[in-house]
Amino acid sequence: MNTHFPCKRISEDGYELWLRYVPVAQPALAEYRAALTHIVIDGVSATLQAARDELVFALPCLLGASVPLADTAGRGALVAGTPHRSPLIAALDLEADLAGVGDEGYVITAVPGAEPNRIVIAANTDIGVLYGVFHFLRHLQTHQPLRGLRVVSAPKIRLRMLNHWDNLDGTVERGYAGFSLWDWHKLPDYLDPRYTDYARANASIGINAVSLTNVNANALVLTRPYLVKAAALADVFRPYGIRVFLTARFSAPIEIGGLDTADPLDPAVIAWWRAKADEIYAHIPDFGGFLVKANSEGQPGPHDYGRSHSDGANLLADALAPHGGVVIWRAFVYDENVAEDRARQAYSDLAPQDGRFRPNALLQVKNGPIDFQPREPYHPLFGAMPRTPLMLEVQITQEYLGHATHLVYLAPLFAETLDADTGCAGPGSLVAHVVDGSLDGHALSGMAGVSNIGSDRNWCGHPFAAANWYAFGRLAWDHRLSTEQIADEWLRVTFGNDERFVEPAKAMMILSREAVVNYMTPLGLHHIMARNHHYGPGPWVAGGRRDWTSVYYHQAGPDGIGFDRTASGSNAIGQYCSPFRELVADLDTCPEEYLLWFHRVAWDHTMKSGRTLWDELCLRYQHGVEMVREMQRTWDALSGYVDAARFEHVRTLLAIQEKEARWWRDACLLYFQTFSGRPLPKGVEPPEESLEYYLNLTHYYVPGIPERRFG
Amino acid sequence: MNTHFPCKRISEDGYELWLRYVPVAQPALAEYRAALTHIVIDGVSATLQAARDELVFALPCLLGASVPLADTAGRGALVAGTPHRSPLIAALDLEADLAGVGDEGYVITAVPGAEPNRIVIAANTDIGVLYGVFHFLRHLQTHQPLRGLRVVSAPKIRLRMLNHWDNLDGTVERGYAGFSLWDWHKLPDYLDPRYTDYARANASIGINAVSLTNVNANALVLTRPYLVKAAALADVFRPYGIRVFLTARFSAPIEIGGLDTADPLDPAVIAWWRAKADEIYAHIPDFGGFLVKANSEGQPGPHDYGRSHSDGANLLADALAPHGGVVIWRAFVYDENVAEDRARQAYSDLAPQDGRFRPNALLQVKNGPIDFQPREPYHPLFGAMPRTPLMLEVQITQEYLGHATHLVYLAPLFAETLDADTGCAGPGSLVAHVVDGSLDGHALSGMAGVSNIGSDRNWCGHPFAAANWYAFGRLAWDHRLSTEQIADEWLRVTFGNDERFVEPAKAMMILSREAVVNYMTPLGLHHIMARNHHYGPGPWVAGGRRDWTSVYYHQAGPDGIGFDRTASGSNAIGQYCSPFRELVADLDTCPEEYLLWFHRVAWDHTMKSGRTLWDELCLRYQHGVEMVREMQRTWDALSGYVDAARFEHVRTLLAIQEKEARWWRDACLLYFQTFSGRPLPKGVEPPEESLEYYLNLTHYYVPGIPERRFG
Repeated sequence: MNTHFPCKRISEDGYELWLRYVPVAQPALAEYRAALTHIVIDGVSATLQAARDELVFALPCLLGASVPLADTAGRGALVAGTPHRSPLIAALDLEADLAGVGDEGYVITAVPGAEPNRIVIAANTDIGVLYGVFHFLRHLQTHQPLRGLRVVSAPKIRLRMLNHWDNLDGTVERGYAGFSLWDWHKLPDYLDPRYTDYARANASIGINAVSLTNVNANALVLTRPYLVKAAALADVFRPYGIRVFLTARFSAPIEIGGLDTADPLDPAVIAWWRAKADEIYAHIPDFGGFLVKANSEGQPGPHDYGRSHSDGANLLADALAPHGGVVIWRAFVYDENVAEDRARQAYSDLAPQDGRFRPNALLQVKNGPIDFQPREPYHPLFGAMPRTPLMLEVQITQEYLGHATHLVYLAPLFAETLDADTGCAGPGSLVAHVVDGSLDGHALSGMAGVSNIGSDRNWCGHPFAAANWYAFGRLAWDHRLSTEQIADEWLRVTFGNDERFVEPAKAMMILSREAVVNYMTPLGLHHIMARNHHYGPGPWVAGGRRDWTSVYYHQAGPDGIGFDRTASGSNAIGQYCSPFRELVADLDTCPEEYLLWFHRVAWDHTMKSGRTLWDELCLRYQHGVEMVREMQRTWDALSGYVDAARFEHVRTLLAIQEKEARWWRDACLLYFQTFSGRPLPKGVEPPEESLEYYLNLTHYYVPGIPERRFG
Repeated sequence: MNTHFPCKRISEDGYELWLRYVPVAQPALAEYRAALTHIVIDGVSATLQAARDELVFALPCLLGASVPLADTAGRGALVAGTPHRSPLIAALDLEADLAGVGDEGYVITAVPGAEPNRIVIAANTDIGVLYGVFHFLRHLQTHQPLRGLRVVSAPKIRLRMLNHWDNLDGTVERGYAGFSLWDWHKLPDYLDPRYTDYARANASIGINAVSLTNVNANALVLTRPYLVKAAALADVFRPYGIRVFLTARFSAPIEIGGLDTADPLDPAVIAWWRAKADEIYAHIPDFGGFLVKANSEGQPGPHDYGRSHSDGANLLADALAPHGGVVIWRAFVYDENVAEDRARQAYSDLAPQDGRFRPNALLQVKNGPIDFQPREPYHPLFGAMPRTPLMLEVQITQEYLGHATHLVYLAPLFAETLDADTGCAGPGSLVAHVVDGSLDGHALSGMAGVSNIGSDRNWCGHPFAAANWYAFGRLAWDHRLSTEQIADEWLRVTFGNDERFVEPAKAMMILSREAVVNYMTPLGLHHIMARNHHYGPGPWVAGGRRDWTSVYYHQAGPDGIGFDRTASGSNAIGQYCSPFRELVADLDTCPEEYLLWFHRVAWDHTMKSGRTLWDELCLRYQHGVEMVREMQRTWDALSGYVDAARFEHVRTLLAIQEKEARWWRDACLLYFQTFSGRPLPKGVEPPEESLEYYLNLTHYYVPGIPERRFG
């Protein structure tokens, strides 16, 4: 038995995520072994220790050879450190490069000269070193050459954050990967080793902030017993560069403070939050701040007192400012009692408040103006509030994209928003440049992803869902990375470097987002999932809160389908800048992927394909099903390149996905057909059941949403 | 890298439970390698395949050598099979031994003669072969010699069953090891490999039945979608000899059947259950039957219609009988509106019904007459219903014994009940003989354990909690096994065979049950845990339902403490037979471990030690704390024998346990002191906080019990 390199895994279960260190193949192996014979990291800190630990764990597994720590750097040295702590690094004169990488970036270079075989990972800070180490390990995992290696990298966005929607009882709202990672009951005394692996995984993709609790907040988390528990988690995360945030329930002064109001202008309330912030920072000195959902879907907020969102945000911002914290105020606000198109409401409320927020307040804006649909146009707030740092909020968990049973690679969705040109400050006013602060000169910037992480062994439920956590981190670090490159990286580190696997698997991933758009919500349809749990189709959902129905969004009728958001309708387009506004306003120029988002269209409208809208709609649904089948065929052919356990897991889930894609197609087309009155075009498989069957399908205890006990 | 024997584990996380196949040390290794060079198993069935799979997986890991399957048996053959399917086995003339092992037992023997080095595992059925294979592997894991090996084993109890209290939403009532294993949402399509490992673990300790759902039942599980899901689980379990049971909500005819009654004598209800049974067996041909909690703690039942428990049980028994199923009717019945001592109520209701239950009905009786306390006298029903098969129900999950943070080895608790002599049919009328059917001539017999298994990686939460699952299985197979032998086996297979580890660890385990009795409920105290979640002390709990308070049970007053269950009190003792009844009735002869269970005793009563009751009580609490500290010292000294991860996990939990033991001691003694008015005796550490502090301690979201959202 090989006791030195305990790297052989009994079976692959996805636990290692992309930090999977398997033996490197030739010819890369020979190059690496010659170039990497020992590790030199000068300096003492928890972060540098984490860097050492990762290298000491990974390199022997990758190289099949001992790679010990050493005090002096000889031939084949891997040197990592900062000029401040490491004389070696200081002597290398990397100042020019280091000057540009700030307090989180790094430089990786093969050093020519007297010691030809020396790789250097340098940074201005210890966390930069750690980030550089992870980058370097990824380089090796993907078998890239060391000759000519030169990396200068710094993150474009300051706060690269996960939002966990975890409840204190262990459930996860919109979570499909088991239950919450945080074992509050045993914290702070028992620190599950998983917390450390979580921190490693995040640090390796540059995620530096995490909000632990659901935005549908529980004030209890701000009470002392929970602050002690959160502090224990913060202690585990700190060496990995991750700061802890908590969600702040706006009514906490009442619920846990004993006050009779939470009015942001009330002196007692102001004092309470300041004292609460002081208390938190006494437990967690580098506490990141609060994430707040207010006056949205029943959450308390400043409107309850006739105050504005900026009043509410500033209350908390002021409490946090002395400690260097920030408040992240969610722009996901809408009110069923307001007649305005839901897609307009956030802008209507918040855009006028631009400039009124404190410097340490950010507004967190979802990628689109409704709610994380398979496709949405970008949120009109991007570009509308130049004086306010706007964070992008995307959803990694697949609330509306198939939960844990659908393989959907989301980087194309994230990139679609980031790459969108708002035009609001002229051409090139990309959402990415709003978000990274460069367009409007904000140092404070951020990007948040609603986590898809849970207690499942493989962390994310579907084996491919981990790619979305990975992609989120990579894009938050550098939004210019292509979705293909990210998929390529992830596949190589997660499964292996064989091109005969990587290329087809990558194609399958790239295909998947459009597949789900096709079989769920093609041509700009949106929000037609089943009520509450959002599992499966529900285009018929009506009754109850209007903006939580489906009919509100598709408005199907005998004449046609779609939401008129042009000037003749809700004028949601009026909140966009030119030229996007004009592009989508015109039925002829509106991209078909947004057609029914912005327009109400007749069933017999002629599409670019020459087909009627009805026929096109049907064929899109059918095409979505066929795309899943293509994904299945692709995967089936890859069995020789994947361990049996993960191969079978994905194969089984693809079979479920194909079944559910047909369910979506059949249910939606039968339902819409009651309005169109037209036959399904040739090429669309007939539905397997009746509309009544689909209407009556009831699913209990769907994960991710609480359900009252049956009976 | 060793690709042939992928047995090196990266780290130990407890996932493998006792099916942990690590290299055998010398000198056993030499003996094994010579004796086991190939495997011969004739016959084709899923069960024999499971047996092959286990041997092919385990032997190379144990022996560090290839041990292939072969068609013919030569020198060094391990032969397994039944005479029916295997000519080899038939030729060995093991009829005499096999005649005595029934349809689940096995014979393991080294075969002397022409082929001296051949080990044979023989049974009458394929499942017997599988059980024998696991026994043999355990023999190797514990480094026992092959020379002279001869095992003839058959289970004493027919139904050896786990009761999962799992809800359909994934939560587990009284579960402290994460959430439910059963991913209902993805069943039947996705079969988590964990289901198979669960089946292996159970088969290896002879567990042959499992009830999947909470006894606080949800009728939905009897509807078609869930029957399809349960059938998928049954398919996974079947090769491992495990039959599936479901909990039947008595009001199901109303809730899912649309009837307006669930009266067991109503013809429509009778017909509904018969049709439902037919439906279930169409999905699961070897369905075990129903487990039922009725007219207890709010559950519906026959009393709702003025009918008896036997009426209710027989209704279901009749529906199941044509299919060979059984109904297991829980005797855990008590009613707050009945004035009688809770400890008497089950006997009062059920004992007179002896002889009225159908042959395929069993009554499942908890080990004691209250509810799974750290110590209870045996249930008086054992011995009172000779005409009815009585199943023993014990609780493996530590609802009242420290949840997942206290190391408590429960085999002594299980054995205490099994070994109790009820005297009801003369001397030697052991509970074990009631339960195994031998006392009263019942072929149908059973023992059930409320599962402590959940989604936690190590299955049971506390690393040592798995020992209780293991011990339950071993005792269900053979109740004569000693608690020491079971602990010894478990430690060796779970951690290793080094005597310098096993002996101290075993002592620690054996000590642990009495430790928890001491620091929670000494001298016969019971049911003084915190309300609802039962986490931590709550001797002050009063108000609300009387029989759910603590004061009802300890009745502490200025004069003394304890529940008079003698003839001068509730006369619970009257339900016992001689000589136990007389033994406990007399204050002088009553074992002190049951003192306050059966008697109300003055604070200054003189104990056997010469101390007053008050002083003795205090010193027992203190001693409990000291026993935990001794456990900590023992464990700390064993770090060299245990992998770092599991060592640290246990060490951390022991620290929590010591803290909680002090909490128990301090809270209980401060509270009882308000009645005794006496000082703590010398030797008892002063309490760390005030009584008010302990009274005001509030814990939210304690695992295992649902909690309304705060605020």
